[in-house]
Amino acid sequence: MQKYAVIVAGGKGLRMGAALPKQFLLLKGLPILMHTLRAFYDADSTTKIILVLPEDHFDYWWQLCGENRFSVPFTIVAGGASRFQSVLNGLNEIDTDGVVAIHDGVRPLVSKEIIDKSFDVAASKGSAVVAVPCKDSLRVKAGDFTKSVLRSDYYLIQTPQTFRVDAIKKSFAVEELSSFTDDASVYEFSGGRIELIDGDYKNIKITTQEDIIFAEAMISH
Amino acid sequence: MQKYAVIVAGGKGLRMGAALPKQFLLLKGLPILMHTLRAFYDADSTTKIILVLPEDHFDYWWQLCGENRFSVPFTIVAGGASRFQSVLNGLNEIDTDGVVAIHDGVRPLVSKEIIDKSFDVAASKGSAVVAVPCKDSLRVKAGDFTKSVLRSDYYLIQTPQTFRVDAIKKSFAVEELSSFTDDASVYEFSGGRIELIDGDYKNIKITTQEDIIFAEAMISH
Repeated sequence: MQKYAVIVAGGKGLRMGAALPKQFLLLKGLPILMHTLRAFYDADSTTKIILVLPEDHFDYWWQLCGENRFSVPFTIVAGGASRFQSVLNGLNEIDTDGVVAIHDGVRPLVSKEIIDKSFDVAASKGSAVVAVPCKDSLRVKAGDFTKSVLRSDYYLIQTPQTFRVDAIKKSFAVEELSSFTDDASVYEFSGGRIELIDGDYKNIKITTQEDIIFAEAMISH
Repeated sequence: MQKYAVIVAGGKGLRMGAALPKQFLLLKGLPILMHTLRAFYDADSTTKIILVLPEDHFDYWWQLCGENRFSVPFTIVAGGASRFQSVLNGLNEIDTDGVVAIHDGVRPLVSKEIIDKSFDVAASKGSAVVAVPCKDSLRVKAGDFTKSVLRSDYYLIQTPQTFRVDAIKKSFAVEELSSFTDDASVYEFSGGRIELIDGDYKNIKITTQEDIIFAEAMISH
């Protein structure tokens, strides 16, 4: 079954004075996004990789590819106004059956084990969403205050979130809702059932300076 | 107002062949638990520190204190069969009014800013519980499957969890319930209102090998 990976790299524009979007920050000397693409390529080099990037990042990205002699093959697609729209643009590039892993561009530490299992489980069960148990206590908003909820009932959701191509394309053929916080919630809205698979705590989304420090340390070990 | 810190270090026994409990693992050459005690002492040396440790760890702890010439003053109390019982044993050591910060022994990276603010807010509002927004999507168990929930409604709860002494002692004068996942849930059960204050993502609970790597990296920066 043909494998696809839609790598979504959002982030703000590249205006003068703005901070560099996280996906371009260096991790061990290489932009984070290149680590992410390489993880999918190294897991299985026949996977077709679709990179979704804001159009005004294209020039900078190609410049980085040249500077780093980046040789992983990919198709590049312009992002949309929201994550939902960006994923949709990526899915529209796919023109065969198969399974597609949708993955955050800023999760460079995803392992081969997780990638392989995601494709396997999605092929057999329709979906595979990477999750880890919540280690901290949780509270939920309740009016002006918050109340505690039972941590053991909750999972923290990571990516990849992997689906059969036909089913996830049908799921994305809807009006975007504000309750679509990830691809699993879109799939679920159209009646799909989500299969969770074990992630690992290393597979972090890089969103803060601490995350970069963590990622550098993990790569060194 | 007198400040107290109840530092709770649970973890399994020290049987032959068992892994060393996390609180004794070395962080930059010093047991994690010593970093934690020192954080409270360095924030305000007049804070009375109460260390709750399983009784069968006492000998090893004192040996570590000698080897490391550990000079932070503390009172040591035997832990109970559960976190609730351990905290209760710690609270029973307090015999004056004041505010008490209850803190995980394996959160060594807590900052002076968070400690100071915890005591200040608890003194004025009755409680101060450290929380951070949830960065990952969340799913909750629903029968045999799970369903997505709105991440922005949830907070990940850290420690310290800080309260006025008289109020938290009253809260702990109940039968233990399985829904008591932290001290905030105990306080809330007795009718107390929880005030959240901003934590930071650095203030992690060390529970996995990756966490040690992260903590070492953070201390180096």
